[in-house]
Amino acid sequence: MNIMKFNRKLLVLSHKALIAIGVMLMVTVCGEPASKVDTTSKHPMLVTTANDLVEMRQAIKSKGLFQQAYLATKSDVDALIQQPIVVPVPKDGGGGYTHERHKKNYQFMYNASLMFQMTQEEKYLQYVKDMLLQYAELYPTLPLHPKRKMKSQNPGKFFWQSLNEAMWLVYTIQAYDLIVDALSVQDKTTIENKLLKPVALFLSEGQPSTFNKVHNHGTWATAGVGMAGYVLDEPEWVEKALYDLDKSGKGGFLAQLDELFSPQGYYNEGPYYQRFALLPFITFAKAIENNEPQRKIFQHRDSVLLKAIDTTIQLSYNKLFFPINDAIKSKGIDTIELVQGVTVLYSQTQDTGLLDIAQVQDQIVLSGDGLRVAQAIDNNLSTPYQFKSVAFGDGADGQQGALVVMRSELNPEQNPHGSALLFKPASQGLGHGHFDKLTWQFYDHGSEIVSDYGAARFLNVEAKYGGRYLPENETYAKHTVAHNTVVVNESSHFDKNLDVANANYPKVNFFEHNQFGSVSSAQIGTAYPEVLLERTLALVDLPKLNKSIAIDLFAVESSPPAQFDLPLHYHGQLIETNLTLDANTQTLSALGQNNGYQHLWLKASATPEKGLAKVTWLHDNGKFYTQTSSVAGQEAFLFTQIGANDPNFNLRNEQSFIRRVTDKTSHQFVSLLEPHGEYNPSKEYTLQATSQLSELSVEQQGVLTLVSFTLADQSYLVVVNKATNLQGTQEFKYQNQPYSLKGRLTLVELDK
Amino acid sequence: MNIMKFNRKLLVLSHKALIAIGVMLMVTVCGEPASKVDTTSKHPMLVTTANDLVEMRQAIKSKGLFQQAYLATKSDVDALIQQPIVVPVPKDGGGGYTHERHKKNYQFMYNASLMFQMTQEEKYLQYVKDMLLQYAELYPTLPLHPKRKMKSQNPGKFFWQSLNEAMWLVYTIQAYDLIVDALSVQDKTTIENKLLKPVALFLSEGQPSTFNKVHNHGTWATAGVGMAGYVLDEPEWVEKALYDLDKSGKGGFLAQLDELFSPQGYYNEGPYYQRFALLPFITFAKAIENNEPQRKIFQHRDSVLLKAIDTTIQLSYNKLFFPINDAIKSKGIDTIELVQGVTVLYSQTQDTGLLDIAQVQDQIVLSGDGLRVAQAIDNNLSTPYQFKSVAFGDGADGQQGALVVMRSELNPEQNPHGSALLFKPASQGLGHGHFDKLTWQFYDHGSEIVSDYGAARFLNVEAKYGGRYLPENETYAKHTVAHNTVVVNESSHFDKNLDVANANYPKVNFFEHNQFGSVSSAQIGTAYPEVLLERTLALVDLPKLNKSIAIDLFAVESSPPAQFDLPLHYHGQLIETNLTLDANTQTLSALGQNNGYQHLWLKASATPEKGLAKVTWLHDNGKFYTQTSSVAGQEAFLFTQIGANDPNFNLRNEQSFIRRVTDKTSHQFVSLLEPHGEYNPSKEYTLQATSQLSELSVEQQGVLTLVSFTLADQSYLVVVNKATNLQGTQEFKYQNQPYSLKGRLTLVELDK
Repeated sequence: MNIMKFNRKLLVLSHKALIAIGVMLMVTVCGEPASKVDTTSKHPMLVTTANDLVEMRQAIKSKGLFQQAYLATKSDVDALIQQPIVVPVPKDGGGGYTHERHKKNYQFMYNASLMFQMTQEEKYLQYVKDMLLQYAELYPTLPLHPKRKMKSQNPGKFFWQSLNEAMWLVYTIQAYDLIVDALSVQDKTTIENKLLKPVALFLSEGQPSTFNKVHNHGTWATAGVGMAGYVLDEPEWVEKALYDLDKSGKGGFLAQLDELFSPQGYYNEGPYYQRFALLPFITFAKAIENNEPQRKIFQHRDSVLLKAIDTTIQLSYNKLFFPINDAIKSKGIDTIELVQGVTVLYSQTQDTGLLDIAQVQDQIVLSGDGLRVAQAIDNNLSTPYQFKSVAFGDGADGQQGALVVMRSELNPEQNPHGSALLFKPASQGLGHGHFDKLTWQFYDHGSEIVSDYGAARFLNVEAKYGGRYLPENETYAKHTVAHNTVVVNESSHFDKNLDVANANYPKVNFFEHNQFGSVSSAQIGTAYPEVLLERTLALVDLPKLNKSIAIDLFAVESSPPAQFDLPLHYHGQLIETNLTLDANTQTLSALGQNNGYQHLWLKASATPEKGLAKVTWLHDNGKFYTQTSSVAGQEAFLFTQIGANDPNFNLRNEQSFIRRVTDKTSHQFVSLLEPHGEYNPSKEYTLQATSQLSELSVEQQGVLTLVSFTLADQSYLVVVNKATNLQGTQEFKYQNQPYSLKGRLTLVELDK
Repeated sequence: MNIMKFNRKLLVLSHKALIAIGVMLMVTVCGEPASKVDTTSKHPMLVTTANDLVEMRQAIKSKGLFQQAYLATKSDVDALIQQPIVVPVPKDGGGGYTHERHKKNYQFMYNASLMFQMTQEEKYLQYVKDMLLQYAELYPTLPLHPKRKMKSQNPGKFFWQSLNEAMWLVYTIQAYDLIVDALSVQDKTTIENKLLKPVALFLSEGQPSTFNKVHNHGTWATAGVGMAGYVLDEPEWVEKALYDLDKSGKGGFLAQLDELFSPQGYYNEGPYYQRFALLPFITFAKAIENNEPQRKIFQHRDSVLLKAIDTTIQLSYNKLFFPINDAIKSKGIDTIELVQGVTVLYSQTQDTGLLDIAQVQDQIVLSGDGLRVAQAIDNNLSTPYQFKSVAFGDGADGQQGALVVMRSELNPEQNPHGSALLFKPASQGLGHGHFDKLTWQFYDHGSEIVSDYGAARFLNVEAKYGGRYLPENETYAKHTVAHNTVVVNESSHFDKNLDVANANYPKVNFFEHNQFGSVSSAQIGTAYPEVLLERTLALVDLPKLNKSIAIDLFAVESSPPAQFDLPLHYHGQLIETNLTLDANTQTLSALGQNNGYQHLWLKASATPEKGLAKVTWLHDNGKFYTQTSSVAGQEAFLFTQIGANDPNFNLRNEQSFIRRVTDKTSHQFVSLLEPHGEYNPSKEYTLQATSQLSELSVEQQGVLTLVSFTLADQSYLVVVNKATNLQGTQEFKYQNQPYSLKGRLTLVELDK
């Protein structure tokens, strides 16, 4: 009924539509017979429906964000359709010409078909139709792609990997859906039989291992094939896309929804792949919702897909995703996948905080949901989005470790992005996961301070290993030493065996966020044989000093005596240490022979005596940071720079220092990270360039860990309750004074 | 007469003034006697006059930029005067507590005294008066500063160097001028006799070597003392400030104006010190103009001071100054010195392009001139400021070399800052000058691409050598190898002897900017004995490709056979070379033993055969750059990273490659720098990551240098006329086709 309503309105409103029909009739006279607009048609029917189009056509007549987005796209498409259509014979791998061209082509078809629907102008239809016909002519002639990598994944025909082919289908089937009603029967037949159906079959029956795989490659394939099922009226394809080729439910879209996300919507591979994986989920789900609302796909599994979109936003800091695992570090919340996600999420929830994110994204999707976002922003409905401190449970059951985000928003005027501490007692995250159990990162003043290398890759840069993951991704970036967690005997967690890593994960002992800050503790006994790693991290607010500090307690137990290394990778220039540095000034050597150590130059070392060992660096953001370690004369400090054994200059030359103890069965690394001061050479002032921490010690009282420190002449006591089961209020004494602790974390300002 | 007019208006308009007088009368009753506002007074009389104040008080009643600036300052000052006044006994050097406090104090006094005049509220007066009285009590007790560095410059008493003391006086005398009429006779006497006069005498008679010096330290001293002369009615001080203590004119402010700037307004030390030096020039000049307009100070020497302000703007790229010589790289046109400069320059010239700069600076000065700028911006009078291609002659006569700026603004939509090439056949620039004759830098897409290290210094960071210039400024940053120019036999220009360097300078053979781009050639025969260095640089627009490329021809002749090194320091990650790299993967060694070479790690080397040798890097701005050298099998390429012999991590670990030929009496380095493509991992595309240059060669036809190259399948010929005296049109043939060249530079698109 909605469709009829639309078409009646169309006949009244759209003189352009009448012109378009006229043009098509003319085309009939001059060439092949064209069908008239089918007033009983159900197209378009995927993300954008006929009903949406009525509103969208209306909206572009008035000023506002939606009109701006429409005009920008129209201007692009108008320029585009002046250019000849190029559908090259596939030749190049990722980043190469034919690869990029075919990627562009599906985007071109999608945008031009949208413009056809928005304007009803024949020229856009013609462009899309011509391109589809060229594709239909080319496709039957194609063998598998010449640059295919058979070992690692299924190949495509247009693209070296079928992943790209599935993406092609996801876009192209939407473009086709937008123009199909204006095509002649003959063109429809050609395009469907020679192109779309064979591609859909190739991506489903033709590669069951990918199609049925519970993995983001599978999601793209099922989304493309499932949407093709709706458009081409092949309901069996939809069933197979949802429930596996054999309809067992073992694979398919619903299994992917059930298994790839935790109950909180955390995606096992981390936010970089989460945002990538989101798009086919969102797109196909929206198409399912539009065609079979009875499936209640957005409510599936307690609305896990909607949670997943929000979680992707939460897993960012100052617009960029936390770069754990194989992540390209410049990816952030303004990626098109998350733009689409926020658009759908707002449409489903009307949560006005999402408009805040949409404004940062600064892109409006040309869809019905996009229109709702644009109008809401135009109407000033946006409210501040709330970033939260959360432990995102990992694994399908949410019990396979967690990714823990701690945030502090003290001093929001000076530090609008606040501080964030990311703690990673997460599971491996499959093939793109890094061997970095219990690692952490720290963010402040909009910047990454304690850093993660991310992926060793120059995406699509042919000269850099064809734009693929570099060899150094395996030899360095995935190794434990490339992260901020303990390495035992210079070998990586799980000995860098992926199967073992996938089968094991840390246990999160606890996480709590309260008025004093956030605290979490986790442990893992399987990263190394006979070794227990246990880390407690806290982000504690010191309101009196208007800053938050991070406390790190890393306990290691090993049955055979062993060497424990705890690296801290930082962004910035080393400013000061209170150590006696033995610097390698004339020659540098690699720190080790393998497991990532071969890529680290040893620039200097020091063996501080008992007391506080401080390392201060200056970040490009103009702030100073000091990591102070409480040492007992056993830790050596090794200052390193990435770049050894890197003959092709593939690695970024970043800095770290490694705390090392040798021949130990037990050790606790104790440290405190303190942001301080400001370097402003432009305005010619420097404030507090030196750490203000004068004392740091830890003691254990039963289940309570007491960390005392003196910062800027104020003495503090931070107490963490590590009890297995929290019970009521815990009383304790410190320096003969009685105190009590409710929950996991408290902060006491001590009189002195 | 103006003063009378002002006071009449004041009596009518300002009920606040009446209240202020009332308050003062109350003060009289309660404490020491206060003078009434002196209606015959000439104060304030320096940068801000009584007339200005009438308009300024009016302006803050209406919305606009001036009101905003006023309210922001008032808010700061209101918070400030809640705090106790602290005038500490001097103890610390630069960056230390007492140093920073005394710096703040003079700014506090200046701002609070302005607020007194704007609001006529007693509380501001009280604050300034109290602070001045504390200073007056402290000053007579002070010996020379305990952290003084007697060897390098005169000490102060509040500050370790008299430079800071002079700055203190420049601000403090202005503050005093703004409140003096509201002080009691007793307070005036105390402040003048115990503080201001002794300070002025200390900075003049007390340190003739600085006061008479034709140097920016001298300018601060003469400005402070000269303005004190106006305010304290000591006309002799003004005379001495203008003409040297002995009034000979050998030193003093006018000699500084005559000798420190070239006729085009270029300041011998480069833009970093130029903007620093500007402030006392502008401030004192404005005071002279207000008090003795008959001196026509702004017209002095063909308006050299006004030219100097504009030149300072011209010597910037994307807001930052070109960082030649001892420069802190984050300094740019928004520094307060240039804000003041633009304010005065606009007031003098009404050039609306300056409003464009003022908008970028985003700061309004609370003065009469500042009001005029604010109102002009409020009235939308701003027009785009024009950055130009100019050879700024160096030296007092403009004939001691030049600093050459070439700019291109092709493709302004994509590249709004354009490309810029800085060529430095300038003279040494005194003690802060670097030994880098004929060096160059390249800027594109808002970023520094071919870089200059600038100064090795962490300004005011105590842990980094007390915040002073680091030892590495002498051992690395000033050395020739730290720059992009030829080093002969691994020794620096002039053997790094400053006296010799100051006495010699390059000869600029020519500079021309025309429709094809810009070209300049310069030479120097004194940098090394028996060696002639001659460099020709061109920034050529290729409109068809929508980009500009840089051509570099560096010819070296040496009587004894020698080694010639030509480094290119770049910002970014090495992406690709077409060389066979011999990389040092297991150990690194320093490239040399001294003259800066000891700070370079040798990461890899290559010895390409005859042909094109390419090095491609990716800048953080997402653009690729390829330097292609035409080599004949003689040049070795040495890839280096800064950081050897740097036990305190004082240096930034930046990259370069050095082209080296050995045992030669003659060599020409030929290269072309080509910006290309884009890396956008966020949007997941990479364009043209590989150089498109397929041919590059040079031939000489008499005075004509012909550079031919093929870029993106288009062949080009760039012709440079190196004739000593240009005469009319030059005819020439290339590949049997006749061409002609008028001027120095032409570009021919060749048919092929």
